[in-house]
Amino acid sequence: MPVGKIRSESQTLAEHRLNYPALANKAYFNYGGQGTLSRGSLEEIQTAYQLVQAEGPFSMRMLNWITQELQRTRECFASELGGDPTSYAITHNATEGCNIVFWGIDWKPGDHLIITDSEHPGVHAAAEQVAKRQQLKLSMVPTAQNQADESILERISSTIDERTKLVAISHVLWNTGRTLPVAEIQSLCRKANVRLLIDGAQSAGVIPLDLAELDVDYFAFPGHKWMCGPEGIGALYIRPSLIDELQPTFVGWRGSMLGEEDKHTAAKFEVATSPFPLLCGLRSAIDLHQRWGTAAERYDQLLENVRTLREALSSIEGVSLVIDHQRAPSGLVSFSLIGKSHSQALKTLERERVLLRSIPTPDCLRASIHYLTDKTEIDRLVSCLKAVLAE
Amino acid sequence: MPVGKIRSESQTLAEHRLNYPALANKAYFNYGGQGTLSRGSLEEIQTAYQLVQAEGPFSMRMLNWITQELQRTRECFASELGGDPTSYAITHNATEGCNIVFWGIDWKPGDHLIITDSEHPGVHAAAEQVAKRQQLKLSMVPTAQNQADESILERISSTIDERTKLVAISHVLWNTGRTLPVAEIQSLCRKANVRLLIDGAQSAGVIPLDLAELDVDYFAFPGHKWMCGPEGIGALYIRPSLIDELQPTFVGWRGSMLGEEDKHTAAKFEVATSPFPLLCGLRSAIDLHQRWGTAAERYDQLLENVRTLREALSSIEGVSLVIDHQRAPSGLVSFSLIGKSHSQALKTLERERVLLRSIPTPDCLRASIHYLTDKTEIDRLVSCLKAVLAE
Repeated sequence: MPVGKIRSESQTLAEHRLNYPALANKAYFNYGGQGTLSRGSLEEIQTAYQLVQAEGPFSMRMLNWITQELQRTRECFASELGGDPTSYAITHNATEGCNIVFWGIDWKPGDHLIITDSEHPGVHAAAEQVAKRQQLKLSMVPTAQNQADESILERISSTIDERTKLVAISHVLWNTGRTLPVAEIQSLCRKANVRLLIDGAQSAGVIPLDLAELDVDYFAFPGHKWMCGPEGIGALYIRPSLIDELQPTFVGWRGSMLGEEDKHTAAKFEVATSPFPLLCGLRSAIDLHQRWGTAAERYDQLLENVRTLREALSSIEGVSLVIDHQRAPSGLVSFSLIGKSHSQALKTLERERVLLRSIPTPDCLRASIHYLTDKTEIDRLVSCLKAVLAE
Repeated sequence: MPVGKIRSESQTLAEHRLNYPALANKAYFNYGGQGTLSRGSLEEIQTAYQLVQAEGPFSMRMLNWITQELQRTRECFASELGGDPTSYAITHNATEGCNIVFWGIDWKPGDHLIITDSEHPGVHAAAEQVAKRQQLKLSMVPTAQNQADESILERISSTIDERTKLVAISHVLWNTGRTLPVAEIQSLCRKANVRLLIDGAQSAGVIPLDLAELDVDYFAFPGHKWMCGPEGIGALYIRPSLIDELQPTFVGWRGSMLGEEDKHTAAKFEVATSPFPLLCGLRSAIDLHQRWGTAAERYDQLLENVRTLREALSSIEGVSLVIDHQRAPSGLVSFSLIGKSHSQALKTLERERVLLRSIPTPDCLRASIHYLTDKTEIDRLVSCLKAVLAE
C-alpha cells in the first residue's frame, strides 16, 4: 500500500495501520515491550539479506556497505532525536547502552551511583552489579507515584554527595508511565558536576526530543519498542564533549579500528559483528512514522488516545488508575483491577487476543498506547476488562 | 530443493551448494569473514518474523517462544560442539564472548594477562583495553609461522608467572591459519592454575570439537563464519565448574531474571533483547551442515579441498605459501604474490567475482576453504591469480 508523504494528504489511521501485520489480528497494547514491525521493514530486511548474499557475504563492497548502513542509521536516529550522528553509538538495545555508561565511568571504590527505585529490573540489576564489583555506594531515589516533580528533584539533589559520579534515571518509568523532569534533573546534575544517564526505553519514539537541545549527557534507547524497529538494534547518545571522557569496556573491531577522523565519535563504543541487515528495517520503521507525521503530531495523537483510554477506564467500577495523567504524559497507562489476579486477567485477555502486560511493583496491568492505537482496540480492551471484572 | 538425510544417499556437492544463493554468482573464499547463508536459513528467519508479528510481537506466548528459541539454540550448539547446553551463553559474536571473559575475571592491579602476537585486531584491542583499565601486565607470545608446537608451548609456559590469571589464544590464527595445540595449552594452563580463553572464530564449524571432552575453560565463537549462520549470533562456552567463578559485567533482564534452576548456567552472561528471529536461521544453518555429513566428514572434505588449493598454488611461480600445511590443518590458506600489491590484487579479483581477503601482518592474501568449496572455484581462483601475476 502506498504511503502518502503527509498524513493529511491521503491516509486515514485505518489505512496506515495496514502497514503493520501484527495489528491485523489483535488489540495490541505492548509497544513498551516491543513495537509492531511494518511489512515494509520486513521487506527491507529481506532485501538486505539478499544483497549481502549476492555481493558477499564478506567482500570489500559489503564492508563498505556495513560502514554506510551504520552511518545512515546514526543519521536516521539523529533525524528523529536530534544532535549529530557522531553522537550515536549503535547498540543492540537500551540496556547495552546503560551498561556502556555504567562501566565507562572512571570509578574509584567508595564512589556513589544514584538510581531511582523504579528502574527496569534489567537496568537495576546492571547498576547493582557495577556497584558490587566497583565497590560503589548505590542509592535509590524513591519515585512514589503521584509525588510532585519538585519533590523528586529535591530528593535527587539531596542524595548527591561529593562522591557521586553518576545519576541514572528513566525518562518514563517503565512501571507506571510516570515521566521524570529530565531537563531539570540534567540541569541540577550539571551544576553538581555529576553525569546523568537517561534510560529512554519508554520515551524514545513517544515524546518529541531534541537530545542536543536538551544537552543530555547520556541517553540510551531501543529501536524495537516505540520506534517499531526489529528487535536487536538500539543506540546510545553521548554528549559530544563526553565522548573522550567515557572509556570503552567491551571492545572489538568496530570501535577499535576506526579511521583517524572517527576515533572521537560515539562509534568507538561499538563492538563487533551485529545483525547489520536489520539496520535497513529499523530505518524503514522510523521513516514510516516520519511520513505519517512529525514527532509532535504523533505525540499529540498518542496523548489523545491515552486520554480516551483513561476516561473509559475511569468510568469502570473496579478499575483503579495507578497515576494521574498529568504525571504521566507518556504512552503507558497502568491500572489495577480491584480484587482480581492480574496474571490471571492477563491470560484471559491474551486468549481474547488483547495483549498487554502485568507489572510486579506496583502490582498492576500496563497498557502501551501508541499513536497507532485506534478506537476499536481501546473499545475491545475496555469491554474485555469489564468481562474480566464481571467473572 | 530437498536435502537428503545422509549425503551419500542422494546429494552431490553441486546439488548441496544450490542451497546457498551466495555461491551462485562468484567464487567464494571468505568463510573466515562471513559464511554463506542458505536459502532455508533465510526462509526460517522470515517465518520467525511472521510468527512474532502474528502472535505478538510482545506477549506471554512470545516470551515463552524466546526462552524456547534460546534453549533450542544452546542445544544446537551443544550438538555441534559438545558439552551441555547450559554451558553455552548466546552472544552476538565471538568478540563479545572474549570480552565477557576478559572483564569477568577478578583482576587485581599488577595481574598478568597473556595473549599471542597473532590475535584478531578486535580481540587484541579488547585485551589491551582491559589491561589498561585494570592495570594488568599484558604479554604477547610470538607465534612465528612455522615454529613447532613445542616451542609455542614452551613460550607460553615460560611466560606464565605467579600473577598470571588468564591466557587468551586463538585456536586457529586468523592471519595464517596456523592451528595451535589447544589441548596441550589447556593442560599446561590447568597445571599452572591459570584460566584459558580460546577464540574459536576460525575453528568452530571447521575442526571437529568436543569442548567438554577437551575440558576447555572458555571457548568463544561466532555463528556467522564457518557455521554459515546469520551475522549477529554467536556463543561463549564455559566449563561448568567455572560458571559461578566468572562474574557478569554487562547485565540485563536475560541474565539477571533467570529462574532459580538457571542461575548457575552460562545464560547468566546473556544481557537483553537480541535479534531472536535469527536464532531460527542459525539452527537451520547448522542442521543443514549436519545433514550433509558429520563434523569429521566435513573436516575431511575441507582438508582435501585445502590440499587441492595448496598443490595448485605451489605450482605457480610468484606465489609463496605463508605456512606449511602440517602447521595449519584449518580452512585458512594464506599466501603472498611476490612483487605484487595484495590490495590491488584483491580489487582485481573482486571485479572478477573471486572473493578473498588480504591480511596486514604478515602481508598476504587469505583464502578460506570450506567443505562447500568446489573444484571449479579453486580453478577460477588459480587462473585469476595467474592473470594477476602476469599483469
